Amino acid sequence: MRPYSLECMDGRARCGRFETKHGPFETPQFMPIGTRGSVKGVDVERLREIGTQILLVNTYHLWLRPGPETIRALGGIHGFTAWRGPILSDSGGFQVFSLKNMVRLSDEGVEFRSHLDGSRQFLSPEKSTRIQEELGVDIAMALDECTSPGLTHEEVEESLYLTIRWAKRSLAARQKQSTCLFGITQGGVFRDLRTWAAEELGALDFDGLAVGGLSVGEPKDRMYEVLDYHVQQLPSDKIRYLMGVGTPRDIIEAVHCGVDLFDCVIPTRAGRFGRAYVRGERPFINLKNAEHSTQDGSLDSSCSCLACRNYSRGYISHLFKVGEMLGPQLLTIHNLTHYLELMQRIRQAIRSKEFEAFYQAEKKRWLNVEAEDLSLD
Amino acid sequence: MRPYSLECMDGRARCGRFETKHGPFETPQFMPIGTRGSVKGVDVERLREIGTQILLVNTYHLWLRPGPETIRALGGIHGFTAWRGPILSDSGGFQVFSLKNMVRLSDEGVEFRSHLDGSRQFLSPEKSTRIQEELGVDIAMALDECTSPGLTHEEVEESLYLTIRWAKRSLAARQKQSTCLFGITQGGVFRDLRTWAAEELGALDFDGLAVGGLSVGEPKDRMYEVLDYHVQQLPSDKIRYLMGVGTPRDIIEAVHCGVDLFDCVIPTRAGRFGRAYVRGERPFINLKNAEHSTQDGSLDSSCSCLACRNYSRGYISHLFKVGEMLGPQLLTIHNLTHYLELMQRIRQAIRSKEFEAFYQAEKKRWLNVEAEDLSLD
Repeated sequence: MRPYSLECMDGRARCGRFETKHGPFETPQFMPIGTRGSVKGVDVERLREIGTQILLVNTYHLWLRPGPETIRALGGIHGFTAWRGPILSDSGGFQVFSLKNMVRLSDEGVEFRSHLDGSRQFLSPEKSTRIQEELGVDIAMALDECTSPGLTHEEVEESLYLTIRWAKRSLAARQKQSTCLFGITQGGVFRDLRTWAAEELGALDFDGLAVGGLSVGEPKDRMYEVLDYHVQQLPSDKIRYLMGVGTPRDIIEAVHCGVDLFDCVIPTRAGRFGRAYVRGERPFINLKNAEHSTQDGSLDSSCSCLACRNYSRGYISHLFKVGEMLGPQLLTIHNLTHYLELMQRIRQAIRSKEFEAFYQAEKKRWLNVEAEDLSLD
Repeated sequence: MRPYSLECMDGRARCGRFETKHGPFETPQFMPIGTRGSVKGVDVERLREIGTQILLVNTYHLWLRPGPETIRALGGIHGFTAWRGPILSDSGGFQVFSLKNMVRLSDEGVEFRSHLDGSRQFLSPEKSTRIQEELGVDIAMALDECTSPGLTHEEVEESLYLTIRWAKRSLAARQKQSTCLFGITQGGVFRDLRTWAAEELGALDFDGLAVGGLSVGEPKDRMYEVLDYHVQQLPSDKIRYLMGVGTPRDIIEAVHCGVDLFDCVIPTRAGRFGRAYVRGERPFINLKNAEHSTQDGSLDSSCSCLACRNYSRGYISHLFKVGEMLGPQLLTIHNLTHYLELMQRIRQAIRSKEFEAFYQAEKKRWLNVEAEDLSLD
């Protein structure tokens, strides 16, 4: 039985359901990130309360600390984190490449230095698959090489060859059939390479396909261009996951192209830096701005999260001013609630065949946001 | 009508009830500390859930930032903090004296530099009372001079004269009769001075009496000696509050002498540093110790707080190791739960006339704790 069921479409936007050994989740869906086994500042009861359906954890961090043996001793990733619903892990590759501690890349795998103690470590498709299975996640990702923007066509092509070979080896290394495995397409912003990646990876026996290598520094328009042709190149009977994306604006654009699943640090990281995503004319506000310090109203009158049902903007602004940890906690919960409610509104709009109008209305709110400042300081 | 009702006694230990304009609280009681309007890492819904009955805030910090005007604009201290139950504030004096920024002390008041911007500020009994009334707290404290250990009898006596004069001026400065006002005894560890303080302050029209100037660096035995004679010198028809104390061990000792109310940073601060108070043989454990890193059990099997009903010791130990803020959050909630349950068990033991046995049993658990290390690092 295939884990993904496509339930309905509106244009290219899709509604569906994905089954895992720890229960189902609805799509389109957003995954909060628990890098080291914890969504920063949010306990699992609050995660449930705000409507989280699936959590993402980072293999790289958990592998190095506390290690898969300790996690197994503490009941596997679900016992360890106390999150009893679906959990997806990345392959660890993205951190190895992005933390710039790589020593040597070969067909066999990638050698790197731990960012913790400088010790030499080795990651291969087989090892990544094994670690993720040891963690006990519901969905594992194949090891890929994520390319940076600015590389030549030839360089990206060579990297994609590697990613495809690694994808096949990841599949061959599976021991637990109950752990779903997703492949990842690369190819940068080159249409022929993305097309080739979709054909090659789409033909393999993955439980889902992810689009990697976007939102890594390329201009936003280029990402939207790729999504416009690439998402529909992926098998329509499998779930489609856009990795590491993005703002609410990016998410509606990607759903419009047929994407089903997202993860991103933006709601949590932005929250820790004082930004709150809101409905209304402007898509977000910054609680560090002095204008909020005497405002008696909540962050968002349409929101009923912990922050909005208890606290004023003025109080939250005070928490940031004096450095109280409750400030980041409250904005993290608020932003995750905003994202998860956005996904719910998206699903509702698709089911009632009103997604196009929803998409246009949401898009309009972002028109006056010149270049969304994500530096967050 | 007097706000305090003494309901029953067992030996010198007392059970009672205190009425405020934001509802009653039972005694003996412990107040979590929200220095700058927030109990670090704990939202008001969790505070309610763990059984908090009254909150303490610090006048010094809130006066300097965001200031009483902003707090009034945001609905007073209850609207600001979103804590709708009873709130007590200190006078601000302790911070002025302990932050060592004092410029000049006179009969009129105390001049000091703000720790935030170095600006000159002035605090007097009248001003302290006015600020606390502006904040809108339920219980305000009279401004006193808290003496350090190591002063001579003459120095402490002179200081106590000032404290008594200031106490009378604080009472005279009251504008809102609905705000309760407590007096504070000083006198260091000198029996004649404590006795004099109790006589003078006990005769004034305060709604409660606090014991100040203990647990400020003197040997623990000296504090217990003072409590043994001094608490019963205070009027028995008024609530008795021991300021800034202490460990669970200190609390049972003080209740044994007739104290009704406590506040202390220990449960919250110790929690942020990795210490969890538990029942059982040892009174606390340190989650930073390696022994806990693979332990699958909860912090305390008799506890049902957020931390204990979800997470293992191993996981919480991991959170501290990698510096995740959820670690401090969980231990803060656990320790406050431990303290509030301790108070509940104390009240229960007093009501059922079993406090002496309870006291002896609890005291025994602390026998092997050589000198309780409160350096917390």
